This record gives sequence, structure tokens and C-alpha cells, in this order.
Amino acid sequence: MSIPTVINAAGRAVMTELNGKPAIPFRGVGKYRPSGNRYGPPIPSCTDFPPDGNKVVTTLEEALLRCGIRDGMTISTHHHLRDGDLISNRIFEIASVMGVRDLVWFPSASFPCNEPVIKYLEDGTINRIEGSMNGPLGRFVSEGRMKGTAVLRSHGGRVQAIQDGEVKIDIAVLVAPSSDSFGNARGTGGNSACGVLGYAKADAMYADKVIVVTDNLVDIPCLPMEIEGNYVDYVVVVDKIGIPEKIVSGTTQITKSPDRLLIAELTAAFLEKSGILKDNVRMQAGAGGTSLAIGVFIHEILRKKGWKSKFGFGGSTRYMVEMLEQGQMEYILDAQVFDLESVESVTRNPKHVSYPVFNAYNYHSKGNLTCMMDIMILGATEVDLNFNGNVVTHSDGYLLHGIGGWQNCLHARNVIIPLPLFRDRIPVIVDEVTTLCGPGELIDVVITERGIAINPLRKDLIESVRNSGLPLTTIEKLKEEAERICGKPSKPVFDEKIVAAIKWVDGTIIDTVRKIKK
Amino acid sequence: MSIPTVINAAGRAVMTELNGKPAIPFRGVGKYRPSGNRYGPPIPSCTDFPPDGNKVVTTLEEALLRCGIRDGMTISTHHHLRDGDLISNRIFEIASVMGVRDLVWFPSASFPCNEPVIKYLEDGTINRIEGSMNGPLGRFVSEGRMKGTAVLRSHGGRVQAIQDGEVKIDIAVLVAPSSDSFGNARGTGGNSACGVLGYAKADAMYADKVIVVTDNLVDIPCLPMEIEGNYVDYVVVVDKIGIPEKIVSGTTQITKSPDRLLIAELTAAFLEKSGILKDNVRMQAGAGGTSLAIGVFIHEILRKKGWKSKFGFGGSTRYMVEMLEQGQMEYILDAQVFDLESVESVTRNPKHVSYPVFNAYNYHSKGNLTCMMDIMILGATEVDLNFNGNVVTHSDGYLLHGIGGWQNCLHARNVIIPLPLFRDRIPVIVDEVTTLCGPGELIDVVITERGIAINPLRKDLIESVRNSGLPLTTIEKLKEEAERICGKPSKPVFDEKIVAAIKWVDGTIIDTVRKIKK
Repeated sequence: MSIPTVINAAGRAVMTELNGKPAIPFRGVGKYRPSGNRYGPPIPSCTDFPPDGNKVVTTLEEALLRCGIRDGMTISTHHHLRDGDLISNRIFEIASVMGVRDLVWFPSASFPCNEPVIKYLEDGTINRIEGSMNGPLGRFVSEGRMKGTAVLRSHGGRVQAIQDGEVKIDIAVLVAPSSDSFGNARGTGGNSACGVLGYAKADAMYADKVIVVTDNLVDIPCLPMEIEGNYVDYVVVVDKIGIPEKIVSGTTQITKSPDRLLIAELTAAFLEKSGILKDNVRMQAGAGGTSLAIGVFIHEILRKKGWKSKFGFGGSTRYMVEMLEQGQMEYILDAQVFDLESVESVTRNPKHVSYPVFNAYNYHSKGNLTCMMDIMILGATEVDLNFNGNVVTHSDGYLLHGIGGWQNCLHARNVIIPLPLFRDRIPVIVDEVTTLCGPGELIDVVITERGIAINPLRKDLIESVRNSGLPLTTIEKLKEEAERICGKPSKPVFDEKIVAAIKWVDGTIIDTVRKIKK
Repeated sequence: MSIPTVINAAGRAVMTELNGKPAIPFRGVGKYRPSGNRYGPPIPSCTDFPPDGNKVVTTLEEALLRCGIRDGMTISTHHHLRDGDLISNRIFEIASVMGVRDLVWFPSASFPCNEPVIKYLEDGTINRIEGSMNGPLGRFVSEGRMKGTAVLRSHGGRVQAIQDGEVKIDIAVLVAPSSDSFGNARGTGGNSACGVLGYAKADAMYADKVIVVTDNLVDIPCLPMEIEGNYVDYVVVVDKIGIPEKIVSGTTQITKSPDRLLIAELTAAFLEKSGILKDNVRMQAGAGGTSLAIGVFIHEILRKKGWKSKFGFGGSTRYMVEMLEQGQMEYILDAQVFDLESVESVTRNPKHVSYPVFNAYNYHSKGNLTCMMDIMILGATEVDLNFNGNVVTHSDGYLLHGIGGWQNCLHARNVIIPLPLFRDRIPVIVDEVTTLCGPGELIDVVITERGIAINPLRKDLIESVRNSGLPLTTIEKLKEEAERICGKPSKPVFDEKIVAAIKWVDGTIIDTVRKIKK
């Protein structure tokens, strides 16, 4: 059965019904206005909670039973334990044994460690995943094997969907490196420290039932309270919530590839010469090898000029921590933490603070931080001639990545995408992105090892570097060059069946992903 | 016209309709279970907010107009500027000039500085106050001169009413000692520092429109963000939000009265001998002269024994700060700050933290901190033979005080009320409280300068001090002694007209206040 589709404002065919509920096609950037009110979870009463504040129950199974787990419920988790998470899979293992069916898993992200979930997708325990699908999970979905339709949202879009009641979380299972018996919890301390719990907050506030799972029970009050116990129903204490070395990488590594270093150097030069990089700049970059190199180059420029970045928005890395500690950055604002140095920093440095995702990324909010960022360094799997970006599928059509904060970050003042012209001899700049995740009007600059293409909409930026000596080119020329080297790539062949919907930051559907035709 | 009443579970005649909406009579402690869902304010969109994040408008008047101020709206304010607040009255002055009628003022507390509001109650700008009524405002209400019926709630009850949608705030006007142009705001910095903004958070989160008023505009990001800018519509910058010396008293003063000192000494002795005071104790006391003396005596005992209080819950005072700094208290958790030393402490000491009222006091929550407190020292205007307590009216029947956190604090494990046997030759222990604010089953011990009465329900406590040498007595004997000295006080004579409703922590009506008969 194929789902009926309509053409949305971006020219993509998308469904008007998603997993049995009406869905709104993308209407253009800033064009859709929400109506109605935020969701309010059921009103609880202290009468139903232990007066001594002790909410500890013996096992996760007991907690899930007490939360009334049953068919069709939505279970949410956060991803702060990253690839070291030992609890998410366990939830569905328990549910499977209980014979619960058709759950919706609503993670803030998934990781390779979640491959075992495929078993519970296959046995009917899970109907679908609404969250990032990568590696084996992406392949499973792309092959059309998931029962329900996957829904991919940005970090901000996830928060928007929760607060707007678009996704009603029945049970949130929130792992916490430290918690007290009341459920006040934080991301630091113990053996499984992950730094901050930024992506857990919306779940705690809006879920009907909330379970905190910890391996480090501390005295009341567990401070700072990133999860507030007044939102928590049960606390489960286990031996181990995560594998420390997989929660945070020992060290995040700068790229050693000469091409990537060249891209990083060009990016830093562009930022300097265009005047975007300035004293008090607000900046954000990812934790990939090229982004880290860009950060190091920027640090050097700031130091040389005697400037300081007002703040950097994390995921933080040791390179940001160095800027903070050496005086070239005033604050690190963080929603997640990528390495041990950053965990250490957020634990002890009052200028390194956990920052609410509602404030940073939520588009259904009274403004947000992302719009106010000066420099935003982002990646992409593909960029096309209209500067449209793709981050979820590769050119072979398979779901590969989640959206993360990518769509939210597109709202920054200057969005720069440094990327290699090709990867594994497949061009990255294409005629038309396989999957549209971000409209080209929001992507300002593409920087490759073979030149810099500025979006023609940004006449001001083009003007700012006119006589800079930078290797300026056009997106068309970059594409031609890539194809000259690699040849024109063959397009993936898709089946009719839609396997995933890509949400825009406002909850509308910007694109879909279809099943790969074998 | 008299409102029809029914007798509630505490034997008090209360209305079933309050200001035109159905009201629920008190059903007994822990007996009423709420239904339905928390309120969700309208969903906003970044589309409607400035992309540069700058929400500053020129005047409070302009902000109110942009918020669409109109007849019948509910306007909320917080009380962290205490008697130095320069903004609350100004709101109604503006509204009066605009010709807006029948507003509801919903402050988290009011102070003598709010006397000018009477003018706007008289001219019809304000229909009623839902919040504390003291001094001149209390007299105005008690004389039956307010158009609507006053509603008094505890701090926790106010938060409960907001989240449950019992009170829908149309416009919250939140003064902030520091704010950035996005509306991220805090209680420290500038010339009007008040320490924390604990009571502003619920208003920011749940109001339809939010205005932040500051006299200290700081760079983005204003940290720590006690008010998160994503909830804020407009920021108004004025010359002066408050009078510093009236915001926090220069010094909070321990009582010098020999009787009060004796009460304090007896209280400390009772806590020590009963075993309630112990290592890791969780404690809370007020900022009155007797409470402060008790705190000092407790400090001395802790020091002597080598014990430490796990935490004290504020309003904080310099005496708590001394315990923190000298090592006899591990944390101060704070929802408001009473003196300069405490402002200083919360600004710089990471063990002195702003604590969410939702977590501390809200009864419609998944448990709260108050239930977990070991020692709770509270005041009262009257206590009766059934240990019932009154904090809002004096024995002359006039509204005198707000409830503050008093009702919430009654849920602590050991509730101790130290109070003089009489004030101005009027007995404080009476046959029956003029106004019932807290049921006697929650009040454990009454300590006077002429003896200690333990609630017969607390057999364990009676047992614990049986051979302690403390001057134990009964509540009946205390009353007799007071009347022997002062004579039996005459009762106030009330009119039929109900002028105020007293809410319990769960939103039900525990009692009413009637108009004074002249």
C-alpha cells in the first residue's frame, strides 16, 4: 500500500498522514504558524508519592510495570551515554519478554550500540522509531523492514513535538550518572559521567511517567538538578548504566587529512577576511575532525587579535575548553559533551554551563539562541546546486544519520558548510539532494578543498570577500569539478514505499525517504 | 448578596463558587485528588520574534499594549523586590490611565509599598487581588471594599494553581535585577540585586505573555538564567526597578526580647533532646527574630556535636550563610533571599543555590521537598486547642498576612511553632482559630515561654522527651494560662459577606474570611 502524497513548498512529495495521524506538509521557512496550546501532562499529587521522598524500586522491569507499560505506548530515552548506553536496549528486551507490542521508541538519538533493537522491531515489540536512524538501524529502515514509518526530527524539532503534544511520551526512561532517591539527577559524578543531560529535560517535563535509572545513588539533594525530581515517578538503581570509554571518547581528534586541513584553513581564512569572525563572536561548530581543526584555527586568530568569543555553543570538546581556559571564550553553553576534558570542565567551571534545549533550539518558542549565532559550522552528506542540504541519507539512498541540531543551526546568521568535494570518490555536491533536510536559502557558504561557493542570496558576503584573494567559485563549478574527477554518480533507485518522514523545525514534513529498490 | 456556602471537611463554611468559577471545598489532608492535565500556554513561533533576539521595547506601557492588555485580564508579578518594588504599582497606574477595567492582580506576595494599589481597586482598574493581603490592603479587603473576592494561596498553592490552569496568567510582568535583551534574567547584579527569582519561574513558564523589566541590561547570555528568555515576549529597560535598601534589609536581626529568647532556647533544647536535631538534618526556619535566634542556637549545637545540616531551605539569612561558610551546613537551597549577606552568598557560593518552587512546595507534583524536611520552624497568628493554625488574620478578624510557604511547610516531618503566649496582651492560643489556614493534624509542637505542648497525635515525640526535664504541658493549659493573664479575648464580629477565600495546598477551599462588622 502506498501512502498518498502532495507536493510541499520545497517541491517534495510528502504524505498528509503519518502513522495514522494528520501531517502538515512543509510550507516554506518561517511560513507555518502553529495554533493551539502546549501539551500539559496529567496533574499528579503528592498524595500518591512516598512522603519520605524515596522513589527507588528494585528493577527497571518493576518500574515499567508500575508505569503501566502496555501496547502502543511511546517510550522515550536520551542519548547522553552515546555509544556506551546500556539501558535503552534493555527496555525493549523487558517489554518483549512481557509480550508488549507496537511500542514507539522515541530516542533523542540512537547509536551503533542500539543495533540489538532490530530484534524488537522484528518481533513486533517496537512498531517504529521516531528519532535518528543510523548504521544498521538505518539499513533496516531503508530496506522497508520497519512496521511503522520512521520520523526524523532535529533536536529542536523533538522538543517542539513534545511541547506541542505532537508526540505524547507515555514513559520516559532517563539514565543519569548521578541521582538521589527523589529523582533529582545530573550528568556528572559516578563511573558513567556524561557531563550534562540537556536532552533529557523535555522528556522529564512532558512525559506522563518518568523513570530515572542510575548507577550512582547520591544523597538528597543531587545538585545541579538537571532533571528535577518533582517530575520523576520512579528511580531504579543498577550496577552500570554505561560503558565509560564509549560514553565520552578519550580524546576527540583533529583531522590529519591534508585535504580536510586545507578546508579548515580556508574556512578560518574566510571567517577572518569576511569580517564574520570578530570580537565577542558567538560561534558553534561540531565535533568532527574538520570542525575541530577549524576551531583550533579560529582560536589562533582570536588570540592573535586579542579578541574573545562571547560564547561557544556545545557539544563541547577539549578545544573549546582550551579557548575557555586560555581566555579566548567567555562561556561554553552546552547541551551535550563530547570528551573527558569537557566533562571535567562542566563539572568544575562555572563559565561552562548546561544550557536548555528549549532556549537554544526550539522553533516554537519566543525566539531562540540559534538565530543569534554569528558563526555556524555544519556538515552535510550532500549539498545541491540550490544550496539545499542533506544530512540523513547518503547518495546511495540509505538512511545514515540523524538530523541532530543541524536544522536548528541553519537559523544562525552565517551558516558555513565546509566539506570535501567527494567522499570515497562519490561527489558531495550534486544536482539535487537525495533527501532535503535544509532549504538552500538558509545555507550561506560551502567551502571545499577546491574553492569557496557563496550562496548568491548573500550578496553582502560576496561583497565582503571580493578582493580577499580567497579561492572563490560557484556551486556549479564545484559540482562540475567533482564530476570531472569522479564521474557523474548513479542515482539510487527507490521503491514507492515511504519508510521515513523528515520533519522541519516547525513540525511540518519537508521530505520523505523511500525504500531502496534492490 | 451573600454567596451560598457548604461545610467542608474541616467544619468551615466555604463557598462552592469563587469569582464566578466553581470551587472545591477542602476534603481533608491528602484526600482530594486532582484530575485532568496541566495547563499549556499558547504555542509561540520564532517567526513572530526578532531574529536578532532583541526584544527591548521603550516603555512598560508599550510592552503592555503589545501584550494586548484589556479588561478582565490577570496580571502577575513576583515579590522578590519586597518592600522596595517600584514596578507593580506602575502597571496599574498605566492600566488605569488606559481605562482598562477589572484586572486581577496575581502577585506572589504584596508588601506595604503596594498601598497605592488601593486607588486602582477603588477606581475599578483592579477587580481583585489573588495573593497576600497585608497592612492597608488587608484592611481594605476586611472592610468589604474590594469588588471581587480575594483569594489567598500558599507559595506552593500559587504554583499549583498556575500549572493546573486554575489561574490563567494573561500577562506576567517580571522585574529582574539583570536581564539580557532576549529576556534571560537573574536575581543578581546591578543596583537592585535580590539574590534569586524563584517565584518568577512559574509565571514565565505558564503566562501567555511575559514582560521582563530590568534596570541592568547585560550582554547575552545573562547567566545563571533564572528566567529563560524563550518564555519572554518583551524586555523593558527602566532607570530603577527598586529601592535597594528596601529590597533586602541591611541586616536581619535576632530578637532581643527575653521572652522570645527563652522561646528560642526552649525550641533548640526540644530539638536536641527529642533527637530531631541530628547529623545531616534537613531544616527550615523563617527570618523573624525568634526564628533567627533558634537558628543561632541550632548552629551552636551542631558545632558542639561536630554535626552538619545536610541543607537548609531559605529564604536565606546571614545566619544560614554563617552555617554554610563555617561548615555546619552543606547546602543552602533558596527560593528567596532576605539580606545582603545572602545575596552576596548566592552570587558567589556554588553551595548556595536557587531552588525551584515546583520542586520545593508544589503539592500537585510527584512528591516535593517539604515532605522530606526534618525540622520546620513556623510562626502563626493563632493556634487553637486542636492545634489548628492561623497565619492570615489577627484575633481582631482583620486580614494581616499572606500565607507564604506556611501551608506547604506544614508537610514537613516535624512542624514546630514557637510563639509567645500572648501579643499586646491578646492570647495567641485560642479556643478556635479565627481563620483556619492549617489543620492541627499537621502541627506537631507549640513552644511558648511558659511551656511546650506536643500534639497528642505525636505519641513518638511525647515519648522522646518524657524524662528530658523540658517544661512540658498541654495546649489546654497554655490557653488557660494565657487567659488567666490577659482575660478571655472578645471575638471579632463579622458580617455575612465573604471577602476572601483561603486555599489549601491542593486548590480546595479550607476557609473564608468575612467582612468586619463595624
